[in-house]
Amino acid sequence: MIMLDNMAKTVMERCDILARYSEDPGCLTRRFASPQMRQVNTLVADWMLAAGMTVHSDCVGNIIGRYEGLESDARTLVLGSHLDTVSAAGKYDGILGVLVPLACIEHLHDQERRLPFAIELIGFADEEGLRYHTAYLGSRAVAGTFDPAVLQFTDDAGIPMSEAIRLFGGQPDPVLLQTPRWQRDKLLGYCEVHIEQGPVLEARNLSVGVVSSISGQHRYLVNFYGEAGHAGTVPMHMRHDAMCAAAEYILNVEDVARNTTGMVATVGKVQVYPGSSNVIPGRVAVSLDVRHQEDQVLDQACNDLYDKAIRISLARRVTVDWQRIQEDKTIFCAPHLSLFLARAIEDEKLPVYSLSSGAGHDAVALSAITEVAMLFVRCKGGISHHADESVRLDDVGISIRVINRFLEYVCSMGG
Amino acid sequence: MIMLDNMAKTVMERCDILARYSEDPGCLTRRFASPQMRQVNTLVADWMLAAGMTVHSDCVGNIIGRYEGLESDARTLVLGSHLDTVSAAGKYDGILGVLVPLACIEHLHDQERRLPFAIELIGFADEEGLRYHTAYLGSRAVAGTFDPAVLQFTDDAGIPMSEAIRLFGGQPDPVLLQTPRWQRDKLLGYCEVHIEQGPVLEARNLSVGVVSSISGQHRYLVNFYGEAGHAGTVPMHMRHDAMCAAAEYILNVEDVARNTTGMVATVGKVQVYPGSSNVIPGRVAVSLDVRHQEDQVLDQACNDLYDKAIRISLARRVTVDWQRIQEDKTIFCAPHLSLFLARAIEDEKLPVYSLSSGAGHDAVALSAITEVAMLFVRCKGGISHHADESVRLDDVGISIRVINRFLEYVCSMGG
Repeated sequence: MIMLDNMAKTVMERCDILARYSEDPGCLTRRFASPQMRQVNTLVADWMLAAGMTVHSDCVGNIIGRYEGLESDARTLVLGSHLDTVSAAGKYDGILGVLVPLACIEHLHDQERRLPFAIELIGFADEEGLRYHTAYLGSRAVAGTFDPAVLQFTDDAGIPMSEAIRLFGGQPDPVLLQTPRWQRDKLLGYCEVHIEQGPVLEARNLSVGVVSSISGQHRYLVNFYGEAGHAGTVPMHMRHDAMCAAAEYILNVEDVARNTTGMVATVGKVQVYPGSSNVIPGRVAVSLDVRHQEDQVLDQACNDLYDKAIRISLARRVTVDWQRIQEDKTIFCAPHLSLFLARAIEDEKLPVYSLSSGAGHDAVALSAITEVAMLFVRCKGGISHHADESVRLDDVGISIRVINRFLEYVCSMGG
Repeated sequence: MIMLDNMAKTVMERCDILARYSEDPGCLTRRFASPQMRQVNTLVADWMLAAGMTVHSDCVGNIIGRYEGLESDARTLVLGSHLDTVSAAGKYDGILGVLVPLACIEHLHDQERRLPFAIELIGFADEEGLRYHTAYLGSRAVAGTFDPAVLQFTDDAGIPMSEAIRLFGGQPDPVLLQTPRWQRDKLLGYCEVHIEQGPVLEARNLSVGVVSSISGQHRYLVNFYGEAGHAGTVPMHMRHDAMCAAAEYILNVEDVARNTTGMVATVGKVQVYPGSSNVIPGRVAVSLDVRHQEDQVLDQACNDLYDKAIRISLARRVTVDWQRIQEDKTIFCAPHLSLFLARAIEDEKLPVYSLSSGAGHDAVALSAITEVAMLFVRCKGGISHHADESVRLDDVGISIRVINRFLEYVCSMGG
């Protein structure tokens, strides 16, 4: 196991190396199909080649390494995560999920060992959706669930996605993008390593955890329309202040989530119009993000929150509209793959802890074509999407050993 | 009185004419020291000259017309308002207060009448502060209370105020700008006609009202600092959501104002950081604008609102800072000038109604050097700072007749 422990240091160093490739000089920002994505893909491809894999970049710009199994017609286990980042990102979100399994494959390669199945390791080209305000571009192309309508989207510089993919060396061909890379029966499953991005493992003093499900996520845009007016001249009883209505609503959202076990609900964006200190707000747009691991609970809560928006509006004589942005159902991780992860953790003499993921991951897109599992790694203070994102060297070592053991358990499934 | 009634139509036509001079093609926006301000000043100067006035533009770009009295050493009554506008403005805010008294002076000139006192009519160069985020640049220069520090402020194009004044043909000289145009004993007072910008006169079916005071106005910037985090991964009980704290505060502000007679309080601007739908807000900045005609009540309410911000922060384990932007005391209108306005209204067989102004006006700056009075004119729906701003022709006629009578009453004060 000494070799694997050394690999943790290598993984950390590689995270540092990849973090240098940023579109922003002062922080880490790496968008889909950017020159920096190309540089990172090239580096990762080199490491994959050195680990005995064949490597290619697909039509959307995913970097895919294949480590063949004992038989050429063996089924495939897919591992990986994304290599793009949010704006002013940390070094580990996504990246760790490529580099940890890469270390395990290097270990196999060092031992000149082949397994009864092939492994494909994918660095997805886009999960965060920073450039085109989409999500899972990379993993959806692999799963064949890519929506070709988004090819027309333009980035802040006015570059259409199709053009960006072409410039990157991909093929923005709707047929290719809607063709799954594998048929379901050719796959053993998908396993993704990811930082938790939350404080739960740290609070429980755990290095890693097994993800039970990826919570359903509903997103809405709620607009309150009141009546703008002069802050000095309209008496309080004659006002229809859209911000006061929104404030009442925001507290209600918090209240509903606090009183529903396992639910999180967030108003992260509030836009006030006209937005002057001396004008009564005439319109306020609030984002609403609600997540829960049980679809029925989530649906009920969102219905209640819709009703509440109407009730607040009526009481305050403002109007409201409610725009559905996204209604994703919960994705359940495969019990047998999760059990392999649990056994691997037990083999490390560590307690097994299972938790639901409130964040979406590439595993959501991959679940369209295969069964999925996820291993969460503790991150400091639960912080992610920030330069302060941090993971411990020993936790990375444990995750490498767990995935290494996981591969052994998957052998029991045959090729 | 037939001539005066015709003047109402002329005033309305002139409001339409001046509204054509806009920096925006689709709406009315006329900033301090803009080319459009110069065009408007030229037009107004022509009308002033035709009304028998001598005209000049002062160091800051105010247009000043002087209608001499019977004696050359007579004291001066100052009339006027501002000719600049907010963004996407209406046609009457400020402008009406220049054109109504202009009509009265034209009437005197037609009659070849001189009064025992001189009249100066001023079109102030800046009251709204749109270009440099200041207020009362024009009237403060006249009162000698101009803060020379603001000369260094730059507009959105990076042009310093001093340069803008120079380009406009003014003199950005701190000594000039801090010298009052008159000594207090040379003045009889200042009277300003202005649209109400609120719904009170309309609700009471009144054409005009006498302003008793201009409410004290306190403005603050309140920052709540929580802890940003992933909207999907941080459990509700571990959150320190700055937006929830701000929402609780906003409702408290509304509550305090609703329960204090005569008070208005507004949160018109809310900025959420980082402001993404999937990130728990880490910081929220809210503007707070509180007004009341009694300084003691206003001070007490602001103290209470400060305490409340602290209490909410403590309870939610977020922090708060409280930045004072402005603490203007109430300006009281002069009883004898207000009585002249009231008598003039009675002479028109109209009920006299007195109200406090929640909005600031050039009269605030002029109060530094003389006693002030104001006449409010009803505006449709209380709407101002908007293209829908509207006044009735008959109300304008009444305001012209009231100011005409007011001038007769001021004659009783001698020259």
